[in-house]
Amino acid sequence: MVNQQTKEKYADLALRTGVNLQENQALMINAPIEGADFTRIVARKAYEMGAKDVHINWADDELTRLKYENAPDEVIGSFPEWKVKLHDAYAEDGAAVLSIKATNPDLLKGIDSARVAMANKAAGEAMKNFRQYTMNDRITWSIISIPTGDWAQKVFPEKSREDAVDSLWDAIVNIVRVDKDDPIAAWEEHNKTLETAREILNRKKYKKLHFKAPGTDLELELPDGHLWKGGSAVSEQGTQFNPNMPTEEVFSMPHKYGVNGTVSSTKPLNYGGNLIDNFTLTFENGKVVDFQAEQGGETLKHLLDTDEGARRLGEVALVPNESPVSQSGLIFYNTLFDENASCHIALGKAYPTNLEGGSDMDANTLDKRGVNDSLVHVDFMIGSENLDIDGILEDGSTEAVFRNGTWALNVKG
Amino acid sequence: MVNQQTKEKYADLALRTGVNLQENQALMINAPIEGADFTRIVARKAYEMGAKDVHINWADDELTRLKYENAPDEVIGSFPEWKVKLHDAYAEDGAAVLSIKATNPDLLKGIDSARVAMANKAAGEAMKNFRQYTMNDRITWSIISIPTGDWAQKVFPEKSREDAVDSLWDAIVNIVRVDKDDPIAAWEEHNKTLETAREILNRKKYKKLHFKAPGTDLELELPDGHLWKGGSAVSEQGTQFNPNMPTEEVFSMPHKYGVNGTVSSTKPLNYGGNLIDNFTLTFENGKVVDFQAEQGGETLKHLLDTDEGARRLGEVALVPNESPVSQSGLIFYNTLFDENASCHIALGKAYPTNLEGGSDMDANTLDKRGVNDSLVHVDFMIGSENLDIDGILEDGSTEAVFRNGTWALNVKG
Ligand SMILES: [Zn+2]
Ligand SMILES: [Zn+2]
Ligand SMILES: [Zn+2]
Ligand SMILES: [Zn+2]
Repeated sequence: MVNQQTKEKYADLALRTGVNLQENQALMINAPIEGADFTRIVARKAYEMGAKDVHINWADDELTRLKYENAPDEVIGSFPEWKVKLHDAYAEDGAAVLSIKATNPDLLKGIDSARVAMANKAAGEAMKNFRQYTMNDRITWSIISIPTGDWAQKVFPEKSREDAVDSLWDAIVNIVRVDKDDPIAAWEEHNKTLETAREILNRKKYKKLHFKAPGTDLELELPDGHLWKGGSAVSEQGTQFNPNMPTEEVFSMPHKYGVNGTVSSTKPLNYGGNLIDNFTLTFENGKVVDFQAEQGGETLKHLLDTDEGARRLGEVALVPNESPVSQSGLIFYNTLFDENASCHIALGKAYPTNLEGGSDMDANTLDKRGVNDSLVHVDFMIGSENLDIDGILEDGSTEAVFRNGTWALNVKG
Repeated sequence: MVNQQTKEKYADLALRTGVNLQENQALMINAPIEGADFTRIVARKAYEMGAKDVHINWADDELTRLKYENAPDEVIGSFPEWKVKLHDAYAEDGAAVLSIKATNPDLLKGIDSARVAMANKAAGEAMKNFRQYTMNDRITWSIISIPTGDWAQKVFPEKSREDAVDSLWDAIVNIVRVDKDDPIAAWEEHNKTLETAREILNRKKYKKLHFKAPGTDLELELPDGHLWKGGSAVSEQGTQFNPNMPTEEVFSMPHKYGVNGTVSSTKPLNYGGNLIDNFTLTFENGKVVDFQAEQGGETLKHLLDTDEGARRLGEVALVPNESPVSQSGLIFYNTLFDENASCHIALGKAYPTNLEGGSDMDANTLDKRGVNDSLVHVDFMIGSENLDIDGILEDGSTEAVFRNGTWALNVKG
């Protein structure tokens, strides 16, 4: 069972290593009301660190579900202007943004996925300006998770609600290294390993990656000038921060017109509260031309139909199969954790920061350079102990990048 | 102990008799996160009644206090534009507004009252447009309360936290008539009694009221065309609603230049979380020219200094001393309850609806007619079993309105 002191350490880590809060800066927190205790710890510590203002956007799963069940389409499909203004105001003020995610993976089970897509699309369009701030690292931001009863019981269905929450706290605390004596130092070391991996890949400048596994044979072109990122990021103001905690990936962007072959998912994907499982996508020239799903096919179809860019890839990420998430042996039904269990790719928007100079390019130039754009960015897992990846160099020669689900390159320095 | 069924009855009463929610209308709820359970019941029922959208502004006492303790003056003294937009958007859409109040009366104990006044002033200025909607009954709105641990322990200091919450639930449920078989019918009857009282007073058209009690000798002029209101109100759209639950008062407006004499408080006043107790105000031509307070003198001074109108009166309310609140024998440290224990007056803004045609008058006309304006409206109790009130008629004759704290007029029909 996680005690008060451990929660304080976690809050401290989120503020220092996560968003790297500066004195006299504002902090916006997205949090579930069920996580009020932990959120208050974070807020108190933030003020102690000199925050000038801590604003909390409280959310409640039950209210969200009630709305999806009852509100008419015109309410579901519209995104309020005041909420746009709220986010823009904090972003323009240079606030740090900490999102505490703890959503019940089954939250939207049985809700018409067209309505979920409608809401996501409206939010995506309305929040374009704010998303520029996070996706281009113009402000520091971080996503962490804490357990809620519903989520914990999904991960540990055989346990009582209380025991499940305790077990999920234990798992999270271990995976985000808060059980270490000095979590901040542990993260510095971890960030260094990820830095080494991304530096090797940035020197190699592979033209293509070739993914091979049962049900997967995918060739994925990397655009000229692509950059591998991972671990900590640096904001426009030069502040180092960790967008995701946990994070075990190094990631770049595929060329939006240069993906061919077939890829199979290796973990369930939780999209807007609905699960998509055991699915296969077939690509031609970057675009999904065929798909199948054992579960959640309708949801997958709505996702792919969101817009033009939702059928193309925006991310490729390499994660060794022996990551702490993978070692936990758990399925979290939460992308923040599950994506750090294994290699993954994302449908939808690419991070312009994955291309040299990408943050300063206009939409037209980004498209020409092969950078995908979309209202969505949805990661799904394709890694396993059976995954091999080859890197294809400029001169056509091939070398091993991953073998049996882990690094074949020497990333440990 | 209050069970689930009683909470459902209370939620139902708040939606039907309180805001009188209509089909396809939006509902905005202000609620403390500690009251999430009850708030979810209200939201679910609202959707069942056909609400198109239920938006909840969650608040948290602890966060509010942290902000007052830590944020710099420029943050405390500014009110965010997005919050104005949020309120205006719901008001313009004709939403109903339900406020669930459950604040710890000691929330701001020890906080510099200048900072509290600064925040209230900023909110008052920014929310001018929205306040027009509620104070002129352009939308339906209602304020109710539920217990929180801190508040309950203030009311029942000798009890355990859990027992105190149970006892406060019992007290509230009794006072708002939710323990009746048919609370909605009970409220219809209650509203009728208040209607009779206000109709008698509206026929009488007293020129002045003369309050006499220990420490009180106050003459209070009523402007020409003043109206007595009380119980249910009717919105611009013709929807009947109850702005306050409980409510036991009939109320009108004093003439802003026509108040003379001295008045003593009979219950503590909780202003922005700070208590002002045993205080006396002396008026000349409507304005407070002297004041004394045994407790909270600094807070009272800040209140009076908010603006010009904060030193003048905006309301006079008559409540018999045998009201259910009074019978409970409790002090709630919460104006919604305590003001319904006894007669009270309010410093600050008058309700334009207390003057014939007042809703349509401009600021200049309202002033000429003796209608006070201010950023604040703060009720305090002056009633007791020792209070006598005389009504002075047009012709100078005098008659008994209250004797020994209760009606001398026949209001029971
Ligand atoms: Zn990723
Ligand atoms: Zn991603
Ligand atoms: Zn009143
Ligand atoms: Zn009042």
